[in-house]
This record gives sequence, structure tokens and C-alpha cells, in this order.
Amino acid sequence: MDGAGEAVPPQAARSLVAAGARMDRFGWVPATAGNLSQRLADGRIAITRSGVHKGFLTEADIIAVDAAGTPLRAGDKASAETLLHCQVYRRVPDAGAVLHGHSVAATVLSMTEAAPALTFSGYELLKAFAGQTTHATTLALPMVANDQDMPRLAAVLEPFFTAGMPLGYVIRGHGVYVWGPDMPTALARLEGLEFLLACALERRRLR
Amino acid sequence: MDGAGEAVPPQAARSLVAAGARMDRFGWVPATAGNLSQRLADGRIAITRSGVHKGFLTEADIIAVDAAGTPLRAGDKASAETLLHCQVYRRVPDAGAVLHGHSVAATVLSMTEAAPALTFSGYELLKAFAGQTTHATTLALPMVANDQDMPRLAAVLEPFFTAGMPLGYVIRGHGVYVWGPDMPTALARLEGLEFLLACALERRRLR
Amino acid sequence: MDGAGEAVPPQAARSLVAAGARMDRFGWVPATAGNLSQRLADGRIAITRSGVHKGFLTEADIIAVDAAGTPLRAGDKASAETLLHCQVYRRVPDAGAVLHGHSVAATVLSMTEAAPALTFSGYELLKAFAGQTTHATTLALPMVANDQDMPRLAAVLEPFFTAGMPLGYVIRGHGVYVWGPDMPTALARLEGLEFLLACALERRRLR
Amino acid sequence: MDGAGEAVPPQAARSLVAAGARMDRFGWVPATAGNLSQRLADGRIAITRSGVHKGFLTEADIIAVDAAGTPLRAGDKASAETLLHCQVYRRVPDAGAVLHGHSVAATVLSMTEAAPALTFSGYELLKAFAGQTTHATTLALPMVANDQDMPRLAAVLEPFFTAGMPLGYVIRGHGVYVWGPDMPTALARLEGLEFLLACALERRRLR
Repeated sequence: MDGAGEAVPPQAARSLVAAGARMDRFGWVPATAGNLSQRLADGRIAITRSGVHKGFLTEADIIAVDAAGTPLRAGDKASAETLLHCQVYRRVPDAGAVLHGHSVAATVLSMTEAAPALTFSGYELLKAFAGQTTHATTLALPMVANDQDMPRLAAVLEPFFTAGMPLGYVIRGHGVYVWGPDMPTALARLEGLEFLLACALERRRLR
Repeated sequence: MDGAGEAVPPQAARSLVAAGARMDRFGWVPATAGNLSQRLADGRIAITRSGVHKGFLTEADIIAVDAAGTPLRAGDKASAETLLHCQVYRRVPDAGAVLHGHSVAATVLSMTEAAPALTFSGYELLKAFAGQTTHATTLALPMVANDQDMPRLAAVLEPFFTAGMPLGYVIRGHGVYVWGPDMPTALARLEGLEFLLACALERRRLR
Repeated sequence: MDGAGEAVPPQAARSLVAAGARMDRFGWVPATAGNLSQRLADGRIAITRSGVHKGFLTEADIIAVDAAGTPLRAGDKASAETLLHCQVYRRVPDAGAVLHGHSVAATVLSMTEAAPALTFSGYELLKAFAGQTTHATTLALPMVANDQDMPRLAAVLEPFFTAGMPLGYVIRGHGVYVWGPDMPTALARLEGLEFLLACALERRRLR
Repeated sequence: MDGAGEAVPPQAARSLVAAGARMDRFGWVPATAGNLSQRLADGRIAITRSGVHKGFLTEADIIAVDAAGTPLRAGDKASAETLLHCQVYRRVPDAGAVLHGHSVAATVLSMTEAAPALTFSGYELLKAFAGQTTHATTLALPMVANDQDMPRLAAVLEPFFTAGMPLGYVIRGHGVYVWGPDMPTALARLEGLEFLLACALERRRLR
């Protein structure tokens, strides 16, 4: 492949660096957790490399992979979870950015609730999600078991994409995946989802 | 209308941008939630445009509307909730700034408490509100049902303005509205109210 | 009085401005709550003026008062609570800085615990307080009823000064007072005390 | 000893200053709590001096000690806990940085749980620790009694080093000790451990 195909446009790299810093501010990317990606105009995917802290990214930490998740430059190492990002881009044609973070609320709720999904009803914040125009609705957030085998985990997620996942999904004991047509929208949905999770956790404390 | 009537004075725009950044720092404007406004000297209202993140406002995101909430420049889109801001300015003659935010505490308390209002007694912070000189008092924060029909929601709020709402009000599952004669006072009252709500939530956790 | 007696040395003013910004960062000075002071070399006291937000202080917001709390410049308005600061400087000869803040933990604990004091045992952080060399001790934090009459409130506090208050004290539903020989030490003790209060609140949640 | 042996390389000093600022941002070094160190190429240890606030370090606050914890420059005062840092470097050959912080979660859990260790199972974040490749594991965090006698405390810890402590350890009512081959890794593990502790505390609240 040629150099043009390998380089991540600086604007996309900066967008990912800034998103990582914001996720860090909220405590959603502890240690080297989380990963962030953005679909490029030519179909390639810009994604954070494996093993770096997402709050201290530099543009050099953003690598390009193809639609199957293979790094386009020799020596680049993608995170195993790159496959889950590629799945979102494949199954959601208008997805332009995917964010994966680890919050205390998502981790604790997904490890203590046996139900297959968390449901949210009556929150104004539900309007932050695609196609929602009223709080008077109920949306479900599917929760799937964690698995270090990414193809197997992706296979478990496939039917949920068919059914539609307006809020994204949660991997139990691990974290959330959200997406949007562009990075600002993906970040807004992540904030909206974490707000809903914080409310759900708080309500369980009051029980 | 002429250009003078359309433009928001830079000082007012900057004041709204800074207020949005501060609300974001506290987590009170997740996703694209919340809206902020300020009454201009000529009676127009400067308000955040629809759909933008209130923590990343630029001066271009502040638009001018008339007292009925109609944007004064072709192409500007005001949030539906602009009507609620206009209602405050109409019913509270000395209101100079109105803030609407979404906090976890306001959302959870208003979705779990059946009473028509939250009451606060004995807090020193009550002195942050108009006309209060002692902690030895009880103030009520009305809570009304959420509604996507703004004229109908405004009608429900009308009698509360007649009775007086020293703390502002809460729309259930949605957030708070507070105001003050100027932006620093409105921000101080918002902080005071969110402090009271945080205390109320904490006390319910201890029960 | 002459001009020299009225002006607050810039270094003292800057120290108070910085302390206010740090207290704001932790959420301990919501609305216009709290007040901060420092004893000057000539015996006067530099203190935050009444009614300003302690997170946005400028050097012009720091005024000089005499040992009785009277402002030394015509037109300056001191907070009513200035008297409580003066009491600390009078009763604690080596006090060089006094901080008063409003935290959710101090407010909630002091409104829900009937005991006349909170006691803290076994915390390593107890070593942050004057004269403590081990965690294996028990220190008491007196809690007194709130009162808008400052001379009466000061009179209630007098016997506690005689007995010694290594942690400072709490006014119920209001906030904490702490002090130290200089501003960095006073700030460190405030952080230490708020840490102890946060732990105490957390332990009550687990009960 | 000569000057070269006394001076801390600026890069190491800056690394410790930055780590202190980050720990302060999370509230893990209240008052003058905590201490941070880094092993230098020549075997000496750079460590924070006694009694300073770890959120406001300057390079002058970083001193050099030998492998036994003795300051290498006349007049430098090391914290008593320097011995615990030296123990880690002696017992963990690849340790390059050691961090000790005081969090509310570590303090409260270690004062309320009678078990000799906290155990963590099924968290994706467990992969942040040395040698872990899956969430499907259980790791233990030993908790030992606090003691102002450092040689005695170090002796109590010795057998745990023999057994291996992938998560570090907790001194009850005091705080955590974590380490890594370099400062970024030590900081990442501290964040990972505090995330696990925050989850453990949250789960106890829900019980």
C-alpha cells in the first residue's frame, strides 16, 4: 500500500485525541482502558493504538486500519477490540465515530443486574439518541457477557444490530460502546448514556 | 428588522459561553442538554441555539429572539424550550438571566418523589435565594410533569409564578430552571439549588 | 487611618484568591458561600468581602479589617461571619489563616447526627492535624447549632476554644471552620477534614 | 558523596511532579498525604520529601535517597514511609516507580472489611495488571494493619512479596501502594486499582 493510504488525516487524529482527553476528564478511560475510532472519507478507520492511555493520546497514537481491522502500516498494533469497532461501521452505515469507555456505573450495573438489558423510561435525555423525539418512551440497553475472543463476542452482538440498538450496548464488567454519525454526536450520546447509567445506579441506591 | 436588532452584543454572548462552560464542568449539561439565556437592554433575549453542546459554545451559537421567542434572524433555530425562558422574563420583571440544566440529583429526585414539591429547611444555603436572610425557613421547589408541548407546560407553570418560586422549579426527569437579575446571580442560585438537591439525595441514601 | 493601614499586601490577596479557586474546584464554596481570611504581619486581618463568589475572587475582593472585624476602609463591607474569623485569631495565637467552606458531607452529617460531635478514630489522615503523630487516636469535631446572630454564635463556641479543637468545628447545616499557622497548612487541614467527613458519610451509607 | 550523586535528574523530577498533580486531580493526595518515587538508572531512588502537598510539587521537592532510604544530601528529610518504597524496589526487581495515595474508597473499604484481603473477579480492568490476559480471573489485594513503626510494617509485608501482589497492597485506614516498571505504568495501575475499589464500594452500597 502507498503512503497516502497509511496516514491518518491530522484533523481526524486531533478529533480522536480531544475525545480521549474529554473521556479521561470524566474518568471513563482509567489505566489504558477504552478505545476510540472514526471512519475516514475513503472507508479506512482511524483508531487508537493498543496499550496507550486514552487521556494522553498524541496524534502518533492514532493508526489506520482497513474495514477488517488490519493495520495499514507495518508495525502498527491495533487493539483486539478493533474488531468490535469494525462491526459497528459494517452494520451501521451512517456510523462515523465509535467510542468505548469503562465507567464505574456501567461496570457495576452490568455485574449486578441479571436482566439481559437495562431499560430507561421517561428521561428527557432519551432525546439525545437517534430518532427519539419524546421522553415518553422506553429504550433498552443490551448487556452481553464479556469474552476475550473477539470474533465470538462480535457474533453474539450480531442479532442486536439487526434489531437496532439506539443506546449502544454494554459488555458486562467491561464498558459501553456508543456511536454516532460524527465525533461530536458520538460524544454527546456517550455523555447521555453515562448520565442515564448514573441515574439508574442512583435509583438502585435509594431502593 | 435591521442588523442592529439581530446581533447579540459580544459581552452578552461571552457571558453565556462562560456560563455554559461552567455548567459543563459540573456535569449539568450532558449531551446537548440544557439551555441558557440573558435579557438584553432592549428587551430582546439572547439564548443558546438548538442542538449544540452547552459546554462548547461559541459566540455564534448565541442567537437573539423576541419576547415571544421568535428568532430575529432568518435561519436561526431556537430550542423549543425557549418559550419557558420567555415565560420567566414575562412573569419575573427583574429576571435578567435564566439557566436550565440537567443534573443526576434533580433527575433522580424528581422521578422518585411523588410529592408535588421538594422542601428545604434549615440550610444556610437557603440565604443564596432572593429575599432570604436566615436558614430558619422552609422553601419549596415545585416539580411538574415533563411535557414535549411547551405551551401546555408553560400553562401548568403559570400559577406557580403567581405564588412565587424563590428556588425556581423542576421538570420531572428533565431538569431545573433558575433565574436571577444577572448571570452571576443566576449561576450562584443554580449552584445553591444543586447543592440543596445533592444534600437531599444524600439524606435519602442514608435513610 | 492612613492608606498603608487600609491596603492588603498583594501577596496576601493573591494567597486568598488562589485558596478560593481551589475550594471552588472541590465544590466547597457553592453560590457565594464560604469566607477566607489571613492574619497580616501588623495584626490586621485580610478577608473576603461579603457577597462575592469565592471561586472567582479578584484582589479587589479582599478587604482589611481590624481585630474586631471592622473594615479599615470606608465603603468596604465585611461578611457577618467575619466575627468568627476574628474569634479564631484571638483565641488561637498561632492561627495565621482561617477557612470556612460548605460541603455536602459536612452539611448532611451535621443535619442528621444528633451527637454533639463527630469523632474520628484510626485514620492516618488524623496526622494532618496539629500535634498528631499517630493514627491510633480519636479526635472530636464539635457541631454547634446554626445562628444568624454572630456574637451569640461566637459565645457558644468560646468553651470549645478553651478545650481545644484540633480539627476545627462545624456549624450545623452550614459548614466547617478550620485554621492553621499559614494558608498552605490551613488548606491542607481543610482537605484533611473534608476527607474524614467524606469517609464518615460513606461509612454511614454502608450501614 | 559528590554532587552528581545528590542531584535528581530533571526528567525524573518532572515525572514525579506531573504524577503528583494527576493524583491530586483525582483527590488521592489530600492534605500532605501520599508519596511518590522513581528508581534512577544508577540505583538511587528519587522520592517526594516529607510534609509537602503532592499536588503542588516543585522539582525542589524531589530528593534522592539510597537503597536503604537515607537522603543523599545533608538537610534533606525523607518521609518515614520511604522505607516502604525501598522495600518494593528491593523485592520487585523490575519496579521502576512506586505510588502511594489515600482515597476515600481504599480508606473506607479497609476500615470496614474484616477479611485479610479484598478480591476482584471478572473485571476487564484486571487486565491492567502485570501478567493478566483475561477478565476471567480472581486477584487479591492484601490489607494490613496500619503501623507508625515502618520497619515493623515492612516486616509484616515481606511474606506478601514472596507470594506476589499483582494489585499492590492496602494499609488499613491509610491508603494503597502500587508500582510498575515505569511511571506511566505505575499511574495506570493506580487508576486501575482505584477503579476496582470504587466498583467494590459501589457494590457494597447496593447490598
